[in-house]
Amino acid sequence: MYTLYYSPGTASMVVHLALLEIGADYQLELVDIEQGAQHSAEYRKLNPGGKVPTLLIDGLPFHESAALLTVLAERHPEAKLIPPSCTVERAAWLQWTVFLSNALMASYRLWFYPQELGAEEHSPATRAAVQRKIESVWEQLETHLSAHGPYLLGHTFSGVDLLLAMLMRWSRNMPRPATEWPALRRLADLVRARPSWQRLYELEGLSAW
Amino acid sequence: MYTLYYSPGTASMVVHLALLEIGADYQLELVDIEQGAQHSAEYRKLNPGGKVPTLLIDGLPFHESAALLTVLAERHPEAKLIPPSCTVERAAWLQWTVFLSNALMASYRLWFYPQELGAEEHSPATRAAVQRKIESVWEQLETHLSAHGPYLLGHTFSGVDLLLAMLMRWSRNMPRPATEWPALRRLADLVRARPSWQRLYELEGLSAW
Ligand SMILES: N[C@@H](CCC(=O)N[C@@H](CS)C(=O)NCC(=O)O)C(=O)O
Ligand SMILES: N[C@@H](CCC(=O)N[C@@H](CS)C(=O)NCC(=O)O)C(=O)O
Repeated sequence: MYTLYYSPGTASMVVHLALLEIGADYQLELVDIEQGAQHSAEYRKLNPGGKVPTLLIDGLPFHESAALLTVLAERHPEAKLIPPSCTVERAAWLQWTVFLSNALMASYRLWFYPQELGAEEHSPATRAAVQRKIESVWEQLETHLSAHGPYLLGHTFSGVDLLLAMLMRWSRNMPRPATEWPALRRLADLVRARPSWQRLYELEGLSAW
Repeated sequence: MYTLYYSPGTASMVVHLALLEIGADYQLELVDIEQGAQHSAEYRKLNPGGKVPTLLIDGLPFHESAALLTVLAERHPEAKLIPPSCTVERAAWLQWTVFLSNALMASYRLWFYPQELGAEEHSPATRAAVQRKIESVWEQLETHLSAHGPYLLGHTFSGVDLLLAMLMRWSRNMPRPATEWPALRRLADLVRARPSWQRLYELEGLSAW
């Protein structure tokens, strides 16, 4: 049994999608990040960094969305979200998961939380640099997907595509959204057509892509 | 058979340490990053982001140090660098690996490569903010290790401790090095006492911690 502490459309989304893909039993607990609920002493006991998501597994709390995706994928091999250990596909899956997590997740935090760089708002130069960091990742992924897509692992969907689609979605109000890159767009369309994505929109009350 | 494209003391270090811990057969290929060898067309075929490390596994190139650590650990279970699948310890291991990779690796890039934020040098405010981001991770790890250490998983050494020791080492010339936090210091001392660490210093020609 799993309990997911989530906030609609945030980093918890990939974990929620994985739970839906797996068909696991789970409970949702809303963390109202607009109201600062992630900073409460109670929540910080589960997640010392004060972030969403947290996943309770057998009553114990774990964090880091990319790690939670990996854990769920491993515990439910029948859902085929991750390739078997010791295959080449496994190495590729782990590579992309870590890459998305550190190249993109961290840059988004800079984009959305200028305070973390000590500014109320970014200077135009910093803002442009962070945008460039994010877009250079789209470039790199586009090159890969247009040669080896449509999914990150090639012809077969896997859990890391959920992570990528979530991260692409966060760019929707940026100057140049990820969907402007055609192979990325195609991957997003494939993921958005999945029942898990549609069900998540209902459950989390999301509308805009 | 593995081939590691490395540069002494950089992110390749954790992969090299894992190879030594495992006792695997491997070859080393030096990438001279001072000379910009990571940007050569030839190297970019292996590593499109132009970074070290790259690991060839059965002739195929993979990147992302935290992913490579995970792949090696999984392929050589007898070295016990990673706990078995579906255990609580496995979830904790993956959590810390991803956390270190995105909370720390990405912030270090900002510290060491101000150009990536569009500046020759950081303004004092930005520099202080990046320093704070890094130190807040030391705080969080210190709280965890002083309650649940001496290793990240408790009483037992695992591969993620190699990743942490490497990342701690990079702070040695920062205003407040990670070794100033006592439980972190203790973990570093334990890892530095391992034969793999000592052998790596010889092989990579490192001296300063
Ligand atoms: N590395 C973490 C990042 C989580 C994260 O940044 N979550 C954001 C929402 S997307 C959050 O909790 N923001 C509220 C805050 O930081 O106060 C993960 O992947 O789980
Ligand atoms: N996320 C990558 C980061 C690798 C990285 O930033 N490597 C640095 C050395 S520590 C590098 O290649 N620097 C040379 C450059 O970026 O030009 C990983 O963990 O493997």
